[in-house]
Amino acid sequence: MNEASILQSIKNIIGNEYIGDDCAYLRDLGIVVSQDSLVEDVHFKRVWCTPYQLGYKSAIVNISDIIVSGAMPKYLTVSLSLPDNIPETFIDEFYNGIKSANKNIKIIGGDITGSTDKIFVSITAIGVTNNRNISSRKYAKEGYVIVTKGNFGSSAAGLQELINNNSNRELIKYHLEPELEYDFTEYISKIVKEPYAMMDTSDGLGDALFKIAEASEVKIVADYNKIPHLNNINYNFVLFGGEDYKPVAAIPEKYANNKLFTVIGNVVKYDGIRLDISGNVYREYNELKVYNHFGDAN
Amino acid sequence: MNEASILQSIKNIIGNEYIGDDCAYLRDLGIVVSQDSLVEDVHFKRVWCTPYQLGYKSAIVNISDIIVSGAMPKYLTVSLSLPDNIPETFIDEFYNGIKSANKNIKIIGGDITGSTDKIFVSITAIGVTNNRNISSRKYAKEGYVIVTKGNFGSSAAGLQELINNNSNRELIKYHLEPELEYDFTEYISKIVKEPYAMMDTSDGLGDALFKIAEASEVKIVADYNKIPHLNNINYNFVLFGGEDYKPVAAIPEKYANNKLFTVIGNVVKYDGIRLDISGNVYREYNELKVYNHFGDAN
Repeated sequence: MNEASILQSIKNIIGNEYIGDDCAYLRDLGIVVSQDSLVEDVHFKRVWCTPYQLGYKSAIVNISDIIVSGAMPKYLTVSLSLPDNIPETFIDEFYNGIKSANKNIKIIGGDITGSTDKIFVSITAIGVTNNRNISSRKYAKEGYVIVTKGNFGSSAAGLQELINNNSNRELIKYHLEPELEYDFTEYISKIVKEPYAMMDTSDGLGDALFKIAEASEVKIVADYNKIPHLNNINYNFVLFGGEDYKPVAAIPEKYANNKLFTVIGNVVKYDGIRLDISGNVYREYNELKVYNHFGDAN
Repeated sequence: MNEASILQSIKNIIGNEYIGDDCAYLRDLGIVVSQDSLVEDVHFKRVWCTPYQLGYKSAIVNISDIIVSGAMPKYLTVSLSLPDNIPETFIDEFYNGIKSANKNIKIIGGDITGSTDKIFVSITAIGVTNNRNISSRKYAKEGYVIVTKGNFGSSAAGLQELINNNSNRELIKYHLEPELEYDFTEYISKIVKEPYAMMDTSDGLGDALFKIAEASEVKIVADYNKIPHLNNINYNFVLFGGEDYKPVAAIPEKYANNKLFTVIGNVVKYDGIRLDISGNVYREYNELKVYNHFGDAN
């Protein structure tokens, strides 16, 4: 399945203004809403993570979408489908993992159902806008700078450890228990007064930058040497590894001089190229290496 | 798995006031939220329904929870996980089914992911309260009457047709394309000024009445002969068959004289028995016959 063409097909059917960002921004209610699912043996393997870690990450994936919209995460609904062979302790550990993801968010509902053989988790997160400035990937403008916080590629390196039956627990933890950069996203949504773009790097830094450039009809130029990463992390993981859940934003330059931010690039006029990372240029989405679950960047 | 004990376990972990009704009522936002999932070979079989019907019913299941809260359904997020062997036309048909469930509801987001072999659908519905009176299963009181609308047992009879490879298409349609009673739920939420209880019969009429009686700490007495049903529908299906998605409410008697309502019983003082349907008395939840997917009431 080609996700981009599927999403276009869905947009054509449901024909509305909400689809595009990872959150829907409902102005009439002052909320943003995001729903994401994790499917066993597609997004995770049971033997690789504890129920606690699965709960934690399922929540983080959704909370991340809320905070990069600029909103404050407040409520979760949790739908969990479990096969019969799951131990009874699973549910306690799973919900404790969700709770540990953010102590201030309330779990307000959802359901528990059976499943034939795979675990299926779907979480919906609701954030409140509280007069914060809500982002959109369409809002990058020429002259803006690209800022981020946190290391890139660590989660993909951790996944590689799991795939290869290696045991670097520090790296594996980046994959199973990613941490969000709440201070970065909250600060931006409070101080930036102009329209701005912000995304998380759930599908990789390159993917996020490309999507912002495409939606905003601009070009983004980034300097690989400025992208923060741990030592000895593969170049492809830094650029294209998914699931770090780090924020990346395009904001007016006047806000860039702040200790929270690492400036990694600039927004310039579109010239046929969408994304240029230190001389690697990407014209169309298909040229971009996309993070592939359970495999190398392909 | 015993759903009641699992829900209690989850309540203990997350410790908050929201869990209990099928919707969470978020007073600060003026909204109600519900999330429910449908899992292939647990809640539906691929050979029994078209993608359109699956989309339709996935939406109806969630919209039903919203309208029996008394709120007005407004937004849906849709998460769909599909194995590789699904035909490309599936997605268009599925989303058209969702759209057809209610023309006024907007699909605002969600995601599409892969799945190893089963289809998973999880939908979150958001309703707005718009100053309507929001129900809770805790709000039935002695002296209230039990009102409903629509026929009971038709969906279970339709499921039986599918299980037995029979072909009564009228009955099967009740199972695959249940219709909601919007006029009933909207009217009640607008005219009733007192606290009241309302549920849908997703798990059967007996189950809904029992849950209201238990949560409200009352007894409900109902007359089987007043429960509307099609001709030749099995008694067990009428009382315990699930998925009719008909509303049942406990409201003050003064509102009961209305052509929209069928009065089927009364709320009385608890005397050790929770539910008495024409002489069949149920003291505890475990005594109640609970609708069992892909089987008879057990």
